[in-house]
Amino acid sequence: MTKITASIITIGDELLIGQVVDTNSAWMAQQLNNIGVWVQHRVAVGDVWDDIWQALDEESKRSDIILITGGLGPTADDITKPLLCKYFDGKLVMHEPTLQHVTYLFEYVFKRPMPLLDRNRRQAEVPDVCTVLKNEKGTAPGMLFEKNGKIFISMPGVPHEMQGIMQDHVLDLIQQRYTMPHIGHRTLLTAGQGESMLAEMIKDWEEVLPSFIKLAYLPNYGMVRLRLTGTEEKDLVEQELDRQFAQLKVLVKEYLVVDEDITMNEVVGKMLKAAGKTLATAESCTGGYIAHLITLVPGSSLYFKGSVVSYDNSIKKNVLNVQSATLESAGAVSKETVTEMQKGILNIMHTDYAIAVSGVMGPDGGTAEKPVGTVWIAVGDSQSVEAKKLHFRFDRKRNIELTAINALNMLRLFIKKSK
Amino acid sequence: MTKITASIITIGDELLIGQVVDTNSAWMAQQLNNIGVWVQHRVAVGDVWDDIWQALDEESKRSDIILITGGLGPTADDITKPLLCKYFDGKLVMHEPTLQHVTYLFEYVFKRPMPLLDRNRRQAEVPDVCTVLKNEKGTAPGMLFEKNGKIFISMPGVPHEMQGIMQDHVLDLIQQRYTMPHIGHRTLLTAGQGESMLAEMIKDWEEVLPSFIKLAYLPNYGMVRLRLTGTEEKDLVEQELDRQFAQLKVLVKEYLVVDEDITMNEVVGKMLKAAGKTLATAESCTGGYIAHLITLVPGSSLYFKGSVVSYDNSIKKNVLNVQSATLESAGAVSKETVTEMQKGILNIMHTDYAIAVSGVMGPDGGTAEKPVGTVWIAVGDSQSVEAKKLHFRFDRKRNIELTAINALNMLRLFIKKSK
Repeated sequence: MTKITASIITIGDELLIGQVVDTNSAWMAQQLNNIGVWVQHRVAVGDVWDDIWQALDEESKRSDIILITGGLGPTADDITKPLLCKYFDGKLVMHEPTLQHVTYLFEYVFKRPMPLLDRNRRQAEVPDVCTVLKNEKGTAPGMLFEKNGKIFISMPGVPHEMQGIMQDHVLDLIQQRYTMPHIGHRTLLTAGQGESMLAEMIKDWEEVLPSFIKLAYLPNYGMVRLRLTGTEEKDLVEQELDRQFAQLKVLVKEYLVVDEDITMNEVVGKMLKAAGKTLATAESCTGGYIAHLITLVPGSSLYFKGSVVSYDNSIKKNVLNVQSATLESAGAVSKETVTEMQKGILNIMHTDYAIAVSGVMGPDGGTAEKPVGTVWIAVGDSQSVEAKKLHFRFDRKRNIELTAINALNMLRLFIKKSK
Repeated sequence: MTKITASIITIGDELLIGQVVDTNSAWMAQQLNNIGVWVQHRVAVGDVWDDIWQALDEESKRSDIILITGGLGPTADDITKPLLCKYFDGKLVMHEPTLQHVTYLFEYVFKRPMPLLDRNRRQAEVPDVCTVLKNEKGTAPGMLFEKNGKIFISMPGVPHEMQGIMQDHVLDLIQQRYTMPHIGHRTLLTAGQGESMLAEMIKDWEEVLPSFIKLAYLPNYGMVRLRLTGTEEKDLVEQELDRQFAQLKVLVKEYLVVDEDITMNEVVGKMLKAAGKTLATAESCTGGYIAHLITLVPGSSLYFKGSVVSYDNSIKKNVLNVQSATLESAGAVSKETVTEMQKGILNIMHTDYAIAVSGVMGPDGGTAEKPVGTVWIAVGDSQSVEAKKLHFRFDRKRNIELTAINALNMLRLFIKKSK
């Protein structure tokens, strides 16, 4: 069975000057991968006629499917539609169902109390050589073209619009058209050990992996994700992945967090939900980021009661009941303070577990004794508390993220141990 | 003056299966743009020998500078270094200063109580045809190659390591080597009006923009950023940008948030700081995300006191003092509840302003009366409160983000009005 390959072309100057981070490509790649399409190339080009044209030429030589996002807006910097029209030898015609949809959106969804502008009407024009893919969530429709046996799909760059068109049309359409080889993945998450040492622990096993199974190391936030990918006939791939994954889990055992491709906040959420326990956080330096990570998970209201973000010391005292004497003698970033914060939040929120953090995230506020990156974390229940001092060496945003992930991991270990 | 152009090649299967979002390219593009380098092409390829080789060939035909990230780790899936060695006809040799640095990192920074592994020692091997660029923050050094008048710079994919090498070496090196044309930008942020209507408001002005000035519309979170970019001789560009930008500001006046390229949370932070006022938040559905956005800004402790995340109704009652009768009659997602939350958090935190939000973020929890995406926001001071109901149509994460941005914008308008 031949591999079905795809290229992703993203269009827009904003991608090339770094004004926006491209999250579309990762999402699209994930979806394509799930149905067995191998994304082999991703390209970003500006709103420049020749560059877009050349990208279409090059990628259609490389791949079976070319997905294009961006450049379809109603404003003058968006040149993708006229270009596609010319590239595929078509001419622009009004697409009535799209025009009705655009009219409907402006009237009932955007609720704009004025007649449709010409530039909005033109959103409903499409090349007469394309198949229109309805965009439920926006005005610019998706467009499907074919040329020399390759298919080209153009979608808007707005993430939720592109996602809607992919889910409503593109994924089905690809699966109907192609018979794909199976792509299987197994992913596990480890914490507490670096990439090199993990590699060392599993090297004998890694060396004899069958050639159709690939191993990837994906380090992030001081944790390492290990991913096995297999491409071959489905039963063979799945069986072999199961067998190798079972061996891998044994090899990394003491550092294994979870044998699924989920995040640390999801892991902790699952544990709490399974045990029927509740959690609260008292956050100083993370400013609510731990609570945010926890509540990003749908259904987290089952186990998360809330948080006090005590950014100012007066809140630590007046709301969390940290003693003035503690703040004065040990300081806000200390074992004593986070321990009292943890106790304080348990008393306020009446949860089974609580996390408390306080630290110096930078770039300012560091001292010789407590330099930027110093953080104290306390986790526990009403019976016992564990506190730990960590030190991060990064920028403010990453220090906050690392503090949050480490706090969640400490809680995970605490729950595991106390079971 | 000729334009100096760059291509960015990112290497790694994780980028092509969508397991990680590429944030490096945006950061690199921003930095290059600032010094006048025009990034015209970005490519992502997998850990595949032929694909990397071809990308090097293609991009070196296209651009003066080729920046490469990823594929330099200590594990078997990382093939970039041997490939570069072959591509540039070199052989791998041990680079003693790098070996010393790697040894130092393992001993004093990572604090690993065991001898260096072979695979870590090999991190210090480099092709003898490259110039080594020290990586202060990690083990894999940057490498500079030259071929046919083009320069190639390979860096690790770990964001803070890549950033360190760019700042310590690459940006200087490029500025020393090339005389670059000036690239200037002016960016402003608008809120409250869509892309099409803005385009309509400014179209006469846009039509007569000089050819060396480009306008881009960058919609995000219901706001639109407008960016002018000019490339030409410096004085000319800067003068013309100032002139056009002044006109643009007048044209969008009523929707103008700020005439800088900063975020809504930075705008609000600046206003609070300038006025010497303080803020607290009471968050239900956003779960701490508003507090997180505010505290991402360095120095926010000057004006942000803290937050109560009242995810559970018991916290709304017991901590924020929302009346049981209110929750029972009007419900948790109501004008009455957010108004009481706003009052409650003001009483607890004694700030000048407070924000309160409560809503249904999805995917579950919606009712016919209050469907997923319904959110109530209250902002105000101790004298007056304004509450507003909004409705978002997206996924959980985006609904949370939009709620936060809208709440901050409401506060901004409230502060502006009450001045």
